Amino acid sequence: MTENNNLVLDEILKCNRKAIAKAITLLESNLPESFEKGQSLLESLLPYTGEALRIGISGVPGVGKSTFIEAFGLFLVNLGYRIAVLAVDPSSELSGGSIMGDKTRMNQLAQHPKAFIRPSPSSGVLGGVARNTREAMIIFEAAGFDIIIVETVGVGQSETLVQSMVDLFLLLILPNAGDELQGIKKGILEISDLIVVNKSDGEYEFQAKKTQSEYKKALNFLPQRNTSWQPQILRCSSIEKKGIENIWESAKKFQKILKHSGELEEKRKIQASKWMWSQIKEGLLSSFKNNPYIKIKILEFEKAVNKGSILPTLAAKKLLDEWGNKKKI
Amino acid sequence: MTENNNLVLDEILKCNRKAIAKAITLLESNLPESFEKGQSLLESLLPYTGEALRIGISGVPGVGKSTFIEAFGLFLVNLGYRIAVLAVDPSSELSGGSIMGDKTRMNQLAQHPKAFIRPSPSSGVLGGVARNTREAMIIFEAAGFDIIIVETVGVGQSETLVQSMVDLFLLLILPNAGDELQGIKKGILEISDLIVVNKSDGEYEFQAKKTQSEYKKALNFLPQRNTSWQPQILRCSSIEKKGIENIWESAKKFQKILKHSGELEEKRKIQASKWMWSQIKEGLLSSFKNNPYIKIKILEFEKAVNKGSILPTLAAKKLLDEWGNKKKI
Repeated sequence: MTENNNLVLDEILKCNRKAIAKAITLLESNLPESFEKGQSLLESLLPYTGEALRIGISGVPGVGKSTFIEAFGLFLVNLGYRIAVLAVDPSSELSGGSIMGDKTRMNQLAQHPKAFIRPSPSSGVLGGVARNTREAMIIFEAAGFDIIIVETVGVGQSETLVQSMVDLFLLLILPNAGDELQGIKKGILEISDLIVVNKSDGEYEFQAKKTQSEYKKALNFLPQRNTSWQPQILRCSSIEKKGIENIWESAKKFQKILKHSGELEEKRKIQASKWMWSQIKEGLLSSFKNNPYIKIKILEFEKAVNKGSILPTLAAKKLLDEWGNKKKI
Repeated sequence: MTENNNLVLDEILKCNRKAIAKAITLLESNLPESFEKGQSLLESLLPYTGEALRIGISGVPGVGKSTFIEAFGLFLVNLGYRIAVLAVDPSSELSGGSIMGDKTRMNQLAQHPKAFIRPSPSSGVLGGVARNTREAMIIFEAAGFDIIIVETVGVGQSETLVQSMVDLFLLLILPNAGDELQGIKKGILEISDLIVVNKSDGEYEFQAKKTQSEYKKALNFLPQRNTSWQPQILRCSSIEKKGIENIWESAKKFQKILKHSGELEEKRKIQASKWMWSQIKEGLLSSFKNNPYIKIKILEFEKAVNKGSILPTLAAKKLLDEWGNKKKI
């Protein structure tokens, strides 16, 4: 822990916005010395974390995520809470533009002194972006933010990643059941704790109610969860600011029930352990794959496996043997 | 390729049942010399494989899998096909008794000269059992079996594993929609190519028809597949032998369509490549986990991560560093 880090620590604990932004930049850097510095800073922040409610928010493009987060966020800051909005998304090519890049999306919220919107890293692999987001969460929690919102557009595996770092997963859906259900990815309903039909206003209200009841039925097609919380389906209008309070009540209820039963603590422990193991697996695989000699061998064996001239089991064993021998040199 | 192996090869190609059984036993052995011998045998068999239709069959206990496979199998052998029935299931503790242990379950089929029922390995980790099954498939294909059925009771990850080794995945369900839907695991509907309501006879027939139409609706809740085959929902009575022919017609249609479009070949290539990578990942992780020194370190770091005194990222990095240093010695 350097003296410089000590200063940064103090400033973060005081919720100095410049210090927060600087710490995030440090953690997003790929330089080895930044890694050391960043990790040491995070370690010193750890004792001050764990109190925030972590909410993941997902939904297909066009569902109105920004408008919802703005309405929900303003409602919360008006109650006196401090909230941070982060994003987990892979490179902008995939998601069609860095979703958090444009702060004007959440104009009012972005200007509120109790809110902090962190633009999404504009590129990078999903694993790296997820790590950055987890680490940014620590900074915001230490800085005293009460609610951390992690947003994702749901490209690739991002919902699963977001779910593995939040307490509550909220899925926004559009008020047009039949068509829209098709767009919802495999497994996404199963991981959602709250499902919210957005745009439940004006001419869409009737359709939103219908969607709500269709989803209630759809949930019967899913396996019952072995937890003290069963997923809820709510409606809201982000524009007319209707139903927002109801969502917040549900979220608080969720937190209370899971805290009381000990499931929240358990969930976070499992998340931390899984996170460690996913980093280990990633590290093992990447040192294997990036070895120049093994790289060539992989190409050879993959071609043979594809042609059907060698069995996958044997190809794997031969590659692992090469790797083992390589390491001994 | 030893001379002994050459003899075994010939006998397998002639579909000598004793040679088949012996080869399977050899491949299930954990002795290093058996591994070499087994792999060399499999390699010599490879050119004779790839022609069979590989069908995975799953369903909850009580759905009538044995009765269905017996009825379906007898129908096929009577058409002149040779069929092999294998099973992928983890240890008997988990699945509640080795499901294939009792051949009397499929009494008539087991005695038919054109059928071969392979009892499930009575114990072992899922990955190992899956490997054994993949390798047994090669033997049966080389021996000229036309249809390979891989059965699973769906404990743990077994359906995903089975799906990764077959062409067609068939899910059996009971004729009581509402209740039964609950028991069907996450993701299982998504991977099924054929869904068959079993026990569609007598007093259950009405209920079976209702279930069929409920599932048709349920499929609308799933994402559309980007393939030339869309999942079908059929009914059958294994006892009255009704609907069996229909299922076979669908399976043949499935095979024809996917062969014609090139998707079958592509699917098998992807399966082989994934299999190789899963063995590599397993191998990398197991040599890491089984190193006596790393083992102790893992315990230390996992405890610290659970207590929240160290970040998962840093714990992973430290463990990987230890491992890297260890390997250099």
